[in-house]
Amino acid sequence: MQRWQRLVATVLALTFALTLSANDNRVYRLKLASSWGSTVPVLGDAPSELKELVETMSKGRLQLRIDDPSKHKAGLAVMDLVKLGQYDIGYTASYYYKGKDAKLSFFTTMPFGLLPQEQHAWFEFGGGKEFAEQVYGKEGLMHFQGGNTGMQMGGWFKREIASLDDLKGLKFRIPGMGGEVMSKLGVMVTSTPIGELYLALEMGTIDAVEWISPAFDINMGFQKVAKYYYTGWQEPASETQYLVSKKTYASLPQDLQVILETAINQVASRVMTKAMHLNVTAWEKIKSEHPDVKVASFPDDVLRALDAANMEILNAEAAKDPLFKEILESQQAFLKRARPWTMMGEYSYINNTSK
Amino acid sequence: MQRWQRLVATVLALTFALTLSANDNRVYRLKLASSWGSTVPVLGDAPSELKELVETMSKGRLQLRIDDPSKHKAGLAVMDLVKLGQYDIGYTASYYYKGKDAKLSFFTTMPFGLLPQEQHAWFEFGGGKEFAEQVYGKEGLMHFQGGNTGMQMGGWFKREIASLDDLKGLKFRIPGMGGEVMSKLGVMVTSTPIGELYLALEMGTIDAVEWISPAFDINMGFQKVAKYYYTGWQEPASETQYLVSKKTYASLPQDLQVILETAINQVASRVMTKAMHLNVTAWEKIKSEHPDVKVASFPDDVLRALDAANMEILNAEAAKDPLFKEILESQQAFLKRARPWTMMGEYSYINNTSK
Repeated sequence: MQRWQRLVATVLALTFALTLSANDNRVYRLKLASSWGSTVPVLGDAPSELKELVETMSKGRLQLRIDDPSKHKAGLAVMDLVKLGQYDIGYTASYYYKGKDAKLSFFTTMPFGLLPQEQHAWFEFGGGKEFAEQVYGKEGLMHFQGGNTGMQMGGWFKREIASLDDLKGLKFRIPGMGGEVMSKLGVMVTSTPIGELYLALEMGTIDAVEWISPAFDINMGFQKVAKYYYTGWQEPASETQYLVSKKTYASLPQDLQVILETAINQVASRVMTKAMHLNVTAWEKIKSEHPDVKVASFPDDVLRALDAANMEILNAEAAKDPLFKEILESQQAFLKRARPWTMMGEYSYINNTSK
Repeated sequence: MQRWQRLVATVLALTFALTLSANDNRVYRLKLASSWGSTVPVLGDAPSELKELVETMSKGRLQLRIDDPSKHKAGLAVMDLVKLGQYDIGYTASYYYKGKDAKLSFFTTMPFGLLPQEQHAWFEFGGGKEFAEQVYGKEGLMHFQGGNTGMQMGGWFKREIASLDDLKGLKFRIPGMGGEVMSKLGVMVTSTPIGELYLALEMGTIDAVEWISPAFDINMGFQKVAKYYYTGWQEPASETQYLVSKKTYASLPQDLQVILETAINQVASRVMTKAMHLNVTAWEKIKSEHPDVKVASFPDDVLRALDAANMEILNAEAAKDPLFKEILESQQAFLKRARPWTMMGEYSYINNTSK
């Protein structure tokens, strides 16, 4: 080779090497399993918003494939799908898995617990994130807050609840911790299948049903057959979760890790805002189409009994599991510190401006 | 040249061209002017968090230089710095500029207006974003929500306000729209310089001072010399803003545009959570060190008079500017729709759980 030919060959080789190393154009393809199908209000399209964000920010280097329950057939076992390595990311609600570990509920919402803004502050600055690392870390998972759907209502009731006696023998479909607490007060908690709920309520097979909040309840049609809509106590700040395989996360270059986390945060804050907006518009519609629906709150003795029954259940769990006890005490101490500000802030403002 | 030499030269040229175009490793250096120095609580370190996020996600292709008021000397004129092209991004509060255009206040907060979650829903889904595009667009600016510091307190008062009469002649340092409203009720609104506020309050040169909320107020020391801390009505949802030069934004490739916007959203949600947490901890400290501080709310007749004076001012502005009128009506209609949900949701929950 002549001198200039060697030069050309060298430049060519260097250019190729630089292109490969400096740009690291490897494409990472992750699989996400969602607990909710795309038609579910608020939550259904969050994963596809996440997909678009990460793919745009990474210029296609981070790709997401999204499977909903119609594909993976395991809406309430998404956490296991990720633990088993079948998926890289699960979009779900942590308290679905409380049967396996009661501590998982703390990161979704707790009866008589923190409000969304309080819970976010506890999570970021009050020790919550560190507890989440302990609880999910041993499962091989990272935990990211996925968006808060806000306050859940206490349920649709066919009759007014005027005292504790009215709860005795009441047939009430209410899942989760709310159901456990209610059953301590003599409620007959049913597990009527979702597809049969409306008819069961209409026919009187059940007397009441707890679903979520106006945004989600409106399409179930309960407002047509139950006229008391009770305010909430059992799920004040339902946070969803993105559970990410630690192994997958560690395999990503740093820029893609931060792109994933930042995109999750963007989608999460949109979920909260969207839930707010859909609750507003759904309640407006319910109220205009069914002006006979009454918003009611349980009487004081019922609320005090619910609170006491809830504490009994939580204390029993705390006696069995020191980490459960530690997280419970952390959240309760934070609530005691935070609620005074919530009350002198937003709560007083509502009082001031409704005069 | 021989045939193969021409081939080598062509491949070489193509490789270079592809390397340059496909990877676009051009570095974009943007300048950000903040209204707040780094020691300001909650807001001070938000720009440096933004810088770290965008630089990591872009692998250094998007660089931010951050100047605070000690550098640019124009904390209350940051919007102009961006309009004039001296900076690409301004981090500020839109209502600082209401003297130039009263409509700018709608995107920060309004007296007797929307709460943070309500305001976010209005902005995203209730027309707010489109109004912001109209208002800022003609200034050559894009508008991004920069984080909500939440409820502002009504101020520190040396004496109780028991009636409208107690406001007559009261010397009260309260800036912005709150001050305009108060002066309609006979308050002598002062513009005491910040550095003299504490002494003026201690000496009785002024009777009251409105600052922000516990997180910000605590270091001012007002709790030592004024014992009535009034709840808020004038700034329920103070949102900060990132104002980005349209020209700069248009010059960025799409991935960097989305990286910038998503990073802003991440930092904004952190500002809101951080404000919540600092308000909680600051109030706890104030209350424990000064147990004689009383949280009070203005009596009903004062609140009704403030509300009426506020509407008088807003209606006068609306009569002069059709777009002001349109945005005002949009926010007020949204509040009327949203507040019922806020009240049956979080407000009722606080009632239920404080029983």
